[in-house]
Amino acid sequence: MAPQLDGYFKQVDDMSNHFIERLRQAVAIPSVSSEALRRPDVVRMGHFLADELTKLGATVELRPLGKQHGTNLDLPPVVLARYGSDKKKRTILVYGHYDVQPAEKEDGWNTEPFDLTVLDDGRMFGRGSTDDKGPVLGWLNAIEAHQKAGIDFPVNLLMCFEGMEEYGSDGLEDLINEEGKKYFADADAVCISDNYWLGTEKPCLTYGLRGCNYYSVEISGPGADLHSGVFGGTAQEPMTDLVRVLASLVDTDGKIQIKGIAEQVAPVTKEEEGLYDGIAFTMDTLHEALGSKTTIFEDKKSTLMARWRYPSLSVHGVEGAFSAPGAKTVIPAKVIGKFSIRTVPNMEIEKTHQCVYKHVQEAFDKLNSKNTMKVYEQHSGKWWVASPHHWNFAAASKATQRVWGVQPDFTREGGSIPVTITFEEATGKNVLLLPMGSSTDGAHSINEKLDKKNYIEGIKLLGAYLHYVAEEPMV
Amino acid sequence: MAPQLDGYFKQVDDMSNHFIERLRQAVAIPSVSSEALRRPDVVRMGHFLADELTKLGATVELRPLGKQHGTNLDLPPVVLARYGSDKKKRTILVYGHYDVQPAEKEDGWNTEPFDLTVLDDGRMFGRGSTDDKGPVLGWLNAIEAHQKAGIDFPVNLLMCFEGMEEYGSDGLEDLINEEGKKYFADADAVCISDNYWLGTEKPCLTYGLRGCNYYSVEISGPGADLHSGVFGGTAQEPMTDLVRVLASLVDTDGKIQIKGIAEQVAPVTKEEEGLYDGIAFTMDTLHEALGSKTTIFEDKKSTLMARWRYPSLSVHGVEGAFSAPGAKTVIPAKVIGKFSIRTVPNMEIEKTHQCVYKHVQEAFDKLNSKNTMKVYEQHSGKWWVASPHHWNFAAASKATQRVWGVQPDFTREGGSIPVTITFEEATGKNVLLLPMGSSTDGAHSINEKLDKKNYIEGIKLLGAYLHYVAEEPMV
Repeated sequence: MAPQLDGYFKQVDDMSNHFIERLRQAVAIPSVSSEALRRPDVVRMGHFLADELTKLGATVELRPLGKQHGTNLDLPPVVLARYGSDKKKRTILVYGHYDVQPAEKEDGWNTEPFDLTVLDDGRMFGRGSTDDKGPVLGWLNAIEAHQKAGIDFPVNLLMCFEGMEEYGSDGLEDLINEEGKKYFADADAVCISDNYWLGTEKPCLTYGLRGCNYYSVEISGPGADLHSGVFGGTAQEPMTDLVRVLASLVDTDGKIQIKGIAEQVAPVTKEEEGLYDGIAFTMDTLHEALGSKTTIFEDKKSTLMARWRYPSLSVHGVEGAFSAPGAKTVIPAKVIGKFSIRTVPNMEIEKTHQCVYKHVQEAFDKLNSKNTMKVYEQHSGKWWVASPHHWNFAAASKATQRVWGVQPDFTREGGSIPVTITFEEATGKNVLLLPMGSSTDGAHSINEKLDKKNYIEGIKLLGAYLHYVAEEPMV
Repeated sequence: MAPQLDGYFKQVDDMSNHFIERLRQAVAIPSVSSEALRRPDVVRMGHFLADELTKLGATVELRPLGKQHGTNLDLPPVVLARYGSDKKKRTILVYGHYDVQPAEKEDGWNTEPFDLTVLDDGRMFGRGSTDDKGPVLGWLNAIEAHQKAGIDFPVNLLMCFEGMEEYGSDGLEDLINEEGKKYFADADAVCISDNYWLGTEKPCLTYGLRGCNYYSVEISGPGADLHSGVFGGTAQEPMTDLVRVLASLVDTDGKIQIKGIAEQVAPVTKEEEGLYDGIAFTMDTLHEALGSKTTIFEDKKSTLMARWRYPSLSVHGVEGAFSAPGAKTVIPAKVIGKFSIRTVPNMEIEKTHQCVYKHVQEAFDKLNSKNTMKVYEQHSGKWWVASPHHWNFAAASKATQRVWGVQPDFTREGGSIPVTITFEEATGKNVLLLPMGSSTDGAHSINEKLDKKNYIEGIKLLGAYLHYVAEEPMV
């Protein structure tokens, strides 16, 4: 039986200005986790959340995580909160993060990044609006709307909001593993709202993510940086070797040249073949998000498969070489190329390492260079695929239909959200990714925004999801 | 007839502590031209020189050069000075620079970089000691020792000391061209002391320099930086294209892969073949300067030819890509590879441009990429070769024999000193490069030093050179 939701929905609509004000307050706190000088603002943002939750009647803890790795800087606390502890209700654990990417007006923002600017067309610009303050506040707003409408909250809610997501979630994994059978012990399922619709029109539920193996190739020779006039032509240059090694990894069309990678990829099944055509995704949306037409494929199916179920390799940059504007005639003594591989089922992290190390070593050996080469992993995170047939997804699907009037697409994502797999492993429960924002929100870019419609309907969706969760039969 | 120099030499020895103190005062002024915040120190250094010169009886001008290109920052003044105006004497124009490279103790210096530290073995550590404050003060010290010894100064000395050499000599070329037939009108020859011995034991005179053509290859595609999770595998990545283009330029052994470069290089003559074996240069010295044994050649002759008379190509770095320590999963939207070619006789700047542009375009075209590529020159400077048979060189050669007891090597250099060719063209006179420091001084590195012996004997050499200049017959 479909739950009664009209009263809740009306209440959300009535409170929409209040919810936007709450988002404005949150955006105004520049909680940039990657900048040491902003750390007090990150902490302030954690306290803001804790205060709001306390006012709503939740039990809140600000859990310290110790020092940031390799520094003397205190990590911002994790906000752990519980709303309700009725043994007859299901318990849903939700995750979000209250820190944001860096932003400066001078980077090219059209508005002040930490001043939420709502345009007439409903676009709400501000750093953190969609990533991830809007979704985090969504849960608080859902609680408040239930209270104001006098509707019983359908589940017990456990909340875990961190303040270091944009800088590697330092310390979080240990906390989740430790609390998996303690603070999070009675969670029946997990819901993460830190991703995006595939396009701009149709909601989706996400059941898969690619993993990421990140590598460094370090080539060194001279004892110190050299002057290219004095030494050019007489010394073997590490940078010459490095660009040749990096050039061997992948081609313009994204084809990975490393043996043993493609061989690990799960074959496409008959069932899967049919999945892609129905997905609401157009090349136009991709071109818009990309800001150009420089795509590898011209069709939807190949593009989605490339993003979701095939590995990719990106060369991110070079450390140690000249990287500023202008001209400098340096021969860098030690250069470190950075690249990563997005991994998919059934790739294994260790096996992939071995393939990469072997390929890079062979590419370097071919150069016959006297320089020294090292290749090593910086970090790795496994791919993740959940069962979209679990009641957790069924509830989210029904809620989506109720709020947005359409069956959501079941999608995977090309990116990695390492916390997903951590929650799955620590709790042993099904994890659902339930996005609020859309593909053109520009989460890590300038002019990040969240559409008012996605925010308000998103608040309805989170509440509705919890009502359907309460009604879903055990499988 | 050899000039009487014993009195002068003894005076220099007697005043050596005083001269070291003068160098200490100069080193203590952190005249780093590349850092805007240090600009007042650069200016202070210019005034220090002007004051010292005035005390010595020279006529001094502090010539303003206007604003630094593209900024609102005043350029440090050029110190123009004249010592003596006896029409019966020859006039020598000398050039040096009073600015220095950046230096921070934390970069790895063993001593405070702006605190001249004299070790028992005679090494004098300090930023600018050898590049170029020691040589600049050499001229002042030579004047003072003549005065103290009561010896008539043998020539009229014109001095041009600039404060932006380490940051592109902004504004200097125009000044030299303008003053070529005015302030510098009666110069009979030019002497530049801003280079180094080839090794550590034997002095040299330098009559040739390589030129430098500096290029950027810019590849762009997406409208903004992308997340490699979301877009990896679906977008053509500029960085993938760039490393492939850069990899096509040169191999590990320094062989330039661009057609039309080797073809422009002057053939080795029979006479030249015999030049290299006699040069005081060992692979050990090179290994020491390099801090490793990662040389392209194992023998002296090939190495010297590679440095002096063959072109070389160095890849300096990439702008726009991830260049910090750590890991960042960015797909850079626009990356600019920087490389330069050291040029030699008879290469032509424009012809070399055309070869480079054609090669890069073809390398990019082969990739069949949808990204956009531009290749363009950042700056170019011509190679320079002077006549080592001119009286200017003869005088320097005799002075070297007198001070050091050996015939100097006649050498060329791999680097570029653009001001050399500017002086040659503006004055129409022979230019000599007369080095003071040795090859292991580490001019642009940490722990820059000048050996006390090179400084003190160098002061003798500069004075002796002027005496021989006065005696050389007109050719």
